[in-house]
Amino acid sequence: MAATMQSPVIYVCITCRHQGNQDAAAETEPRPGALLAAAAERAAVGTEVTVRRLRCLANCSRGPSAAMRCNGSWTYLFGGLDEQCASALIEGARLLAGAAEGILPWRGRPEILKRGLIARVPPIGFEEVDA
Amino acid sequence: MAATMQSPVIYVCITCRHQGNQDAAAETEPRPGALLAAAAERAAVGTEVTVRRLRCLANCSRGPSAAMRCNGSWTYLFGGLDEQCASALIEGARLLAGAAEGILPWRGRPEILKRGLIARVPPIGFEEVDA
Repeated sequence: MAATMQSPVIYVCITCRHQGNQDAAAETEPRPGALLAAAAERAAVGTEVTVRRLRCLANCSRGPSAAMRCNGSWTYLFGGLDEQCASALIEGARLLAGAAEGILPWRGRPEILKRGLIARVPPIGFEEVDA
Repeated sequence: MAATMQSPVIYVCITCRHQGNQDAAAETEPRPGALLAAAAERAAVGTEVTVRRLRCLANCSRGPSAAMRCNGSWTYLFGGLDEQCASALIEGARLLAGAAEGILPWRGRPEILKRGLIARVPPIGFEEVDA
């Protein structure tokens, strides 16, 4: 695996509601997930980060949600986000793009990407050494 | 994307403790995650499913955890598992391997892979149509 990853992509779920609000009728439009996606798109302008909208990361009970990865990196999923987190997502994606071994470092990671971490999954073909 | 996926892989976190038990001293050895990995390896014998052990899926508060995917499929992450879930994991991975569009169907999915679903992330290069 290359020491430096490339092509950071952030996937933002546009159907996400706020945590604890699974009542469709009570939700405002546009949905919080769509607002987060729009904010992330604005924050990504002029950077190497691509923001992609999608419909469901199946993290519905802890949304709004976004995932990020680069070529060959682990994929990180975050929840409990809102529009204010857009710049932290971009910052995190750029941190991941420059990270060794495709692992988002804890040190220097924006705070919301620490407490909002839901899970991570390994890159294709990953094999743990000594497991 | 091919209509039929291949090479189902299940990643089992061997460091997972039971939900609500984050106290290392109170945990038994081998850990529940390692027991799940061993059970999944046994259940995979004679199938096309590969079981890989790894150290952390960052789903620590809702473990034991496992992820599954095939070539080109979405990756699914499950939590709240135990040894008894091993055959459901194998069954789910085989269902995913035969699924259209790389999406694990809800119908016919083992029950624990419904209520234990933590999140899913899209395949590399995924772009939502019309989002």
